[in-house]
Amino acid sequence: MPFANLPPLPRDRLRACYWIETPFPLAEAAAVLAGEQSCGTFTRLPGETDALRAAAGAIVERITALDAVSQPSLPTRSLPARLGHTPRYQRAEIVVSWPLANLGASLSALMATVAGNLFELREFSGLRLLDLQLPAAFAHAYRGPQFGIRGTRSLLDVTGRPLIGTIIKPSVGLDAAATADLVRQLLAAGIDFIKDDELQANGPHNPLRARVDAVMPVIRSHEQHTGRRVMYAFNISDEIEAMRAHHDHVVAAGGNCVMVTVATVGLAGVAWLRSFSQVAIHGHRAGWGLLSRSPAIGMDSRAWQQFWRLAGVDHLHVNGLRNKFSESDETVIAAARACVRPMFAEPDPGCEVMPVFSSAQSAEQVADTYRGIGSTDLIYCCGGGIMGHPGGIASGVQSVREAWEAATQGQSLEAYAATHPALAQAIQHFRPAVSA
Amino acid sequence: MPFANLPPLPRDRLRACYWIETPFPLAEAAAVLAGEQSCGTFTRLPGETDALRAAAGAIVERITALDAVSQPSLPTRSLPARLGHTPRYQRAEIVVSWPLANLGASLSALMATVAGNLFELREFSGLRLLDLQLPAAFAHAYRGPQFGIRGTRSLLDVTGRPLIGTIIKPSVGLDAAATADLVRQLLAAGIDFIKDDELQANGPHNPLRARVDAVMPVIRSHEQHTGRRVMYAFNISDEIEAMRAHHDHVVAAGGNCVMVTVATVGLAGVAWLRSFSQVAIHGHRAGWGLLSRSPAIGMDSRAWQQFWRLAGVDHLHVNGLRNKFSESDETVIAAARACVRPMFAEPDPGCEVMPVFSSAQSAEQVADTYRGIGSTDLIYCCGGGIMGHPGGIASGVQSVREAWEAATQGQSLEAYAATHPALAQAIQHFRPAVSA
Repeated sequence: MPFANLPPLPRDRLRACYWIETPFPLAEAAAVLAGEQSCGTFTRLPGETDALRAAAGAIVERITALDAVSQPSLPTRSLPARLGHTPRYQRAEIVVSWPLANLGASLSALMATVAGNLFELREFSGLRLLDLQLPAAFAHAYRGPQFGIRGTRSLLDVTGRPLIGTIIKPSVGLDAAATADLVRQLLAAGIDFIKDDELQANGPHNPLRARVDAVMPVIRSHEQHTGRRVMYAFNISDEIEAMRAHHDHVVAAGGNCVMVTVATVGLAGVAWLRSFSQVAIHGHRAGWGLLSRSPAIGMDSRAWQQFWRLAGVDHLHVNGLRNKFSESDETVIAAARACVRPMFAEPDPGCEVMPVFSSAQSAEQVADTYRGIGSTDLIYCCGGGIMGHPGGIASGVQSVREAWEAATQGQSLEAYAATHPALAQAIQHFRPAVSA
Repeated sequence: MPFANLPPLPRDRLRACYWIETPFPLAEAAAVLAGEQSCGTFTRLPGETDALRAAAGAIVERITALDAVSQPSLPTRSLPARLGHTPRYQRAEIVVSWPLANLGASLSALMATVAGNLFELREFSGLRLLDLQLPAAFAHAYRGPQFGIRGTRSLLDVTGRPLIGTIIKPSVGLDAAATADLVRQLLAAGIDFIKDDELQANGPHNPLRARVDAVMPVIRSHEQHTGRRVMYAFNISDEIEAMRAHHDHVVAAGGNCVMVTVATVGLAGVAWLRSFSQVAIHGHRAGWGLLSRSPAIGMDSRAWQQFWRLAGVDHLHVNGLRNKFSESDETVIAAARACVRPMFAEPDPGCEVMPVFSSAQSAEQVADTYRGIGSTDLIYCCGGGIMGHPGGIASGVQSVREAWEAATQGQSLEAYAATHPALAQAIQHFRPAVSA
């Protein structure tokens, strides 16, 4: 773990851990980063007294050298001649700490401090923010998740298994009435959780209000007839005043969840939504590839998550095993485990959020998912994996639920499938498609 | 230009241009991207009818093959066996268009559509969003810059040369009184524009209100005594309600500019600030390295800019020539030129913003900057390049102003320096430091 074996974090400081790659001596490069992100600039200025540096300077707490390479991972400007013509690019993990007084418990200022200009520094041919360790002041300044894992479960009264979810597909193109029709089928099939696609927000062919007005009566009627509560995450990502209006409309219609694409709404917008939200906030991470695709630049989910958890989302997407994207199974599981790891120690809230598995998911990945996260505290979303089931939507939901039964009972998928035809069909249909 | 030789953009569509790298046939990879970002998913679903695809599907408008490489720029999941064991990774520039009806004129939905999940697609070992072409509906839905270039100039009554600016340094560590002292010196030295560092927001050692209360009387007094107006960009990046309070406090104190770090506040927050702002909005791009450092993943500034220009910033940072960061001079100039290129045709507003040059700037880079952008419509910020001038702050400002006089009069820096000692000192002091 990035902060292992360091002294306990003082209440008035914060820490960040970075992976770096640099042709400069490690201590020199780390000092440039610490200076750039606190009181220094490229030349020492008259006002930068020793006292000021002592009070406001960032401190390099630890440098752990890793491997070295002969080619830079990222292009940089021309290097000083003193480095010679065949520099080596040394990699390391470094821990830097800042006085909280530099920024206060502000997420915006935190991001500018730990993930701001430093990524552009020419001293680095690689730089990734790996993790953050924040003082309790952040837990006091921000609301964090309102519902989180337990609150979400109690809204739906689902225990002992994940919420089985799906995404309205096609992502866009259905109008409000067609969406409601699909919701009706999904409810009949026994789904727990439905979400809008991140592409479906408030476009003219399916406006948010019309969608809420079409979908919510179907959900309310289903609940009245069956006694089963379900959750629909309406994508209300929008401008500030519009999001409040959307939220209020969802609440007035009896909804229990709104969704935001966190990166497109932004930190201030999400924290603001949390300040009045009466329902769970489902956090979608569209655009995550920008931060995660390159091994040489970006951010790990355990750092990135902390911003949105403090801002107040209740659920956070983590991709899924054997997904249709490029992310490795290892980082998917790491992100999911980070979601449920407390950010602060008791008595402060841990800000745990429910990880959302999604992307080419079906019954096929359930056993490995359960093995990876060791818990059923998650939302397991299948789009094509439910709606593309050869036996239809009901068989799709059934197959995923059966897969979780098998996993939590410690039975093999194949053995369980022998007596559960929906699961058997799912295995046959999705396994080749996903591994193609 | 990315959209050259295409038919005029219809009023009901939008276009994006990407650089891609893929081991798959180009048409196949482009179709995956178009499907993922409109109505498709990894498996064809019952609801995805031909009519729906025709109405809501994204269209690949053009594929221009570029070079090919034998190694993928980014790691991807294992590839289908049919591609063989030694695939080539073909690069191309592709243009994709979407029906506006999929999303409406929403910046959040636009970002989810053109810069969302696609970056994670395993079909690509490289993917960059290069440019956007938006229909006028966006110009009607968003306010865009309120002051822009002309408005900023008229707030200060500066013509015929750039605004000569600086950043309060040390970035953090000075309290409000020390900041005001420094402002007093800068005003006496003839500065046009002063900004907070992006790290200085509302921390406990220098709260925004205290800073405004200390700085603004100095600025007002200076204006009363000299008749010269200056601009101070107070960094109000914060939560939604706090930003309004900060803004109102700046306005009440007679300020004329607020600054936001756009990526840390987010799209919804910036557009919201613009909805009531009475002063210019200075857009800082801390974190830009996350999108710009890797040649294989990210976004070009001409695409990225458009979001923030529509949201309503008046100024936008573009780095500077021979900066302390890793960005090339070529992309700096490209970003600056993009700032002043109209986003929409007459009679709709062009949403031009003032480019802000900053990062290790001094008199030394002026001639090349003027040559690159061909205009003085910019803010030229020097931190160390003014405050670190060996003759002091007044000589620092003087040297930058003289360098612009030389450039706009078509004289060489050296010739002009022969009769301008502050400039001569700057050249001697900064040239070696910057090229080191």
